[in-house]
Amino acid sequence: MAEYVLNTWYPIAWSRDIANELTKRRIIEKDLVLYRSSTGKVVAHLDICPHRMAPLSIGRLKDDAIECGYHGMTFDCSGKCIRIPGQRIVGSPAVDTFPTHENMGLVWIWMGDPEKADTSLVYDLPQYHDKENWSSVEGDALEIGCFYLNLADNLCDPAHVSFVHLSTLGNAASEDVPVQFAPTENGQVTWRWIIDAPAIPLFQKFGNFKGNVDRWHYYHYTAPSIAVIDFGSAATGTGAPEGNRDDCIQIYACHFMTPVDADTTIDHWLHVKNFHADAETNSRLSEQFRIAFSEDKLILEAIHHNEKHGVNTRPYRLAIDASPVRMRKLVQTRIEAEKAGQAEPVVA
Amino acid sequence: MAEYVLNTWYPIAWSRDIANELTKRRIIEKDLVLYRSSTGKVVAHLDICPHRMAPLSIGRLKDDAIECGYHGMTFDCSGKCIRIPGQRIVGSPAVDTFPTHENMGLVWIWMGDPEKADTSLVYDLPQYHDKENWSSVEGDALEIGCFYLNLADNLCDPAHVSFVHLSTLGNAASEDVPVQFAPTENGQVTWRWIIDAPAIPLFQKFGNFKGNVDRWHYYHYTAPSIAVIDFGSAATGTGAPEGNRDDCIQIYACHFMTPVDADTTIDHWLHVKNFHADAETNSRLSEQFRIAFSEDKLILEAIHHNEKHGVNTRPYRLAIDASPVRMRKLVQTRIEAEKAGQAEPVVA
Amino acid sequence: MAEYVLNTWYPIAWSRDIANELTKRRIIEKDLVLYRSSTGKVVAHLDICPHRMAPLSIGRLKDDAIECGYHGMTFDCSGKCIRIPGQRIVGSPAVDTFPTHENMGLVWIWMGDPEKADTSLVYDLPQYHDKENWSSVEGDALEIGCFYLNLADNLCDPAHVSFVHLSTLGNAASEDVPVQFAPTENGQVTWRWIIDAPAIPLFQKFGNFKGNVDRWHYYHYTAPSIAVIDFGSAATGTGAPEGNRDDCIQIYACHFMTPVDADTTIDHWLHVKNFHADAETNSRLSEQFRIAFSEDKLILEAIHHNEKHGVNTRPYRLAIDASPVRMRKLVQTRIEAEKAGQAEPVVA
Repeated sequence: MAEYVLNTWYPIAWSRDIANELTKRRIIEKDLVLYRSSTGKVVAHLDICPHRMAPLSIGRLKDDAIECGYHGMTFDCSGKCIRIPGQRIVGSPAVDTFPTHENMGLVWIWMGDPEKADTSLVYDLPQYHDKENWSSVEGDALEIGCFYLNLADNLCDPAHVSFVHLSTLGNAASEDVPVQFAPTENGQVTWRWIIDAPAIPLFQKFGNFKGNVDRWHYYHYTAPSIAVIDFGSAATGTGAPEGNRDDCIQIYACHFMTPVDADTTIDHWLHVKNFHADAETNSRLSEQFRIAFSEDKLILEAIHHNEKHGVNTRPYRLAIDASPVRMRKLVQTRIEAEKAGQAEPVVA
Repeated sequence: MAEYVLNTWYPIAWSRDIANELTKRRIIEKDLVLYRSSTGKVVAHLDICPHRMAPLSIGRLKDDAIECGYHGMTFDCSGKCIRIPGQRIVGSPAVDTFPTHENMGLVWIWMGDPEKADTSLVYDLPQYHDKENWSSVEGDALEIGCFYLNLADNLCDPAHVSFVHLSTLGNAASEDVPVQFAPTENGQVTWRWIIDAPAIPLFQKFGNFKGNVDRWHYYHYTAPSIAVIDFGSAATGTGAPEGNRDDCIQIYACHFMTPVDADTTIDHWLHVKNFHADAETNSRLSEQFRIAFSEDKLILEAIHHNEKHGVNTRPYRLAIDASPVRMRKLVQTRIEAEKAGQAEPVVA
Repeated sequence: MAEYVLNTWYPIAWSRDIANELTKRRIIEKDLVLYRSSTGKVVAHLDICPHRMAPLSIGRLKDDAIECGYHGMTFDCSGKCIRIPGQRIVGSPAVDTFPTHENMGLVWIWMGDPEKADTSLVYDLPQYHDKENWSSVEGDALEIGCFYLNLADNLCDPAHVSFVHLSTLGNAASEDVPVQFAPTENGQVTWRWIIDAPAIPLFQKFGNFKGNVDRWHYYHYTAPSIAVIDFGSAATGTGAPEGNRDDCIQIYACHFMTPVDADTTIDHWLHVKNFHADAETNSRLSEQFRIAFSEDKLILEAIHHNEKHGVNTRPYRLAIDASPVRMRKLVQTRIEAEKAGQAEPVVA
């Protein structure tokens, strides 16, 4: 059993996948049943009937309430038991329920103290909503067989693209460029610039660059499970590093991680770019990300296996590890503060 | 490792499946090898050669004895070693053997003190043998991924049919009808009557009812692993509840459970009905039971998973749980009594 | 976690399978990456990058060095880190490396103190190199789901062939013939002769015997993981037992075991025979061994399962167990001596 931050909004599912039917999801080692009520609101209950522990998800949805498939105990949207067939209701039986909110095409869930579930704290990327200048494409719910903080390590680490993603997001030009990082309100940003170098394969495919480019990667991490990667390129000499990005390609690759359990993470990914494209181009672009993230998955699952079974418990630290190491400390600090009853929810 | 009643006759296999060849079975966490000797008697030994622990079931049957497939140690029907190739027999090596008896198409086994293995204690349903008025059809050996007492819960629980078996054995008419139960010599019976209601789907298919019926379900449980469900219907107003069942459909659905281990049960099921039918009708009837029992399996396996991994350890108890709760206590009492050396075998 | 002899040469792979590319192998519970450098030497490193524990085997081979696939840390043939992209090398980071040597078509590896890795200690069968009088055929890398000492038990045990390998290497004539054994320099030999009996099926197929034969089996075990079985037959009356084997069939069946972990062994097997044959005959001969060894695998895996889950912890010992019991003690003695720092490597 791993430890998790509780008072935060976690992504739990794509909004597109939650309809007026019972759907299973799992997060921080709890099984949940989700459905969209007739009012459009997403309901999320613990997926265990308090009677005999049957999963409510194999019951029936009746008038926005769940009837357990074993003996018909029925729970409304608030989790309250409203019927026990064959007898009156004794006490106040209920199933645990959790606040939800939708934004950016995702259902977000609050697993902590419901009193603190302020929806203004749900993560938001303003460009996602600026349909005039930006366009967004939803990706997948990629299951990765590792703890979510190992994926978070990867997402505080621009250096790996030079070696892992040579066919898509990286190239050799960046191999020896050091990374920098700085704290943000509830996380940190890790970045580097690669100046006057060939465009990466993705931008060779989707950009119109004739010569070398100046390329940036800003990895914005928000504790505990959000990472948004701002990366782009502009023709060298047009002043992009100084702030002039009038003629550039820029993409926010968003990773909204669901910490399922100590061995599993779901990476809900999407991309928001500063140009519009037809469906086929968008689809080809998603395919490039799909290739890249499957490369991360391969490595992260192999590392997870080695961490569980391996011998090397004192790793050799590199300069590029400073940002992931700080990220880990930040998350652990929040967990400890919550346990001590001192934590305040933070704007994500 | 779970605890089990030892001094009882458990069903271990269909008689039809045990021939003059070595066959593996598993019960109360022990692997057994079974075969039918040339005299027709079923032999059941522990499936482990005492020499190097090779399974005897991958050996050879020679003149009613098993020759181990690794080095040829040979054990007769009584378990006694009668040959060690290349040397004389030192001491009295033997493999553990267990008494068996056949009844109702099944092989029954006694895992406890062999001195107490009285075959008159083997379970029997008299109607099974009355070929004139009753006919019986053997079902399957259904493997369910749960502890056998969870299946026994289900078989002391008429209420679940209203929610689990809507296409076969139950309908909404019974939803709010309370259940009753009473102790029997070595178990208990749990029942309810549904008066003046539509026939259940099974009897819609196989009966000739024009109007409403009076329906009964009597769940006869015999500790620790036998459940026989007497259910039937008669036209409303013909006096069935008062005992007049001259013109009714009645079926005994028998469940003879093999407790394999903490995670596995084999349900040997068959049905005995008060009418005769052709093979095709019998087969269609069995198919209806097969559908119903697969619905139980789905729920029981989900509950088993939740019990092993779930969080809710103090269940909310309903009135309908009184019978299963008593059943659990009865079994535990017998286990404790056996451990204390005080238990007497009971007629099943 | 099992215990293993460390200061010994273990077989790790067929030479034919190790080329100038990264290849995974596992031995004594360690994952290794192997490759053949441009000089032809086989390099074997621990398959874990000391940075973040990514397997080096999913990295890239560049100029005889491995570049980690995650962040590009690069290790040369000696295991030394020669590059960290984006920073200078601090300290002396390295990956553990292990001495290797090739003989008899196999790569051998030394998992213990590298100072003691004397290649003159690698096992050798002189007949393998005498291409005039002998011919050898490489077999498979057979994975068996058991601890390697259980396979070693089997390979100090001529008696099992009478019961396990009736279609290939044994027949009923040997059932009651006792076995003998004697210590050797670093192991033991276990043997028996079967005089004036029909030839075994293998020699019925590949020999020209008209009548009965005198047959020998000498099981040469060399601690901890080598077994070479010298078996053959000559026409009865030609004096084979007294040493005259001018007209005989003789085969050395070699088993070079890789102890992978407590549950897994790789048996690299090959055979060396005192006659030459065409490719098709050799292939048919290998097929006979393949059948026989798959019979051993079946039994050894069943025993392994029973040992892990079984109840019989005090086995009944037979006379034929004396040799395997001594073998186990010999290995345990070497392990204890190594732990006490007193062990000397021994000629294998």
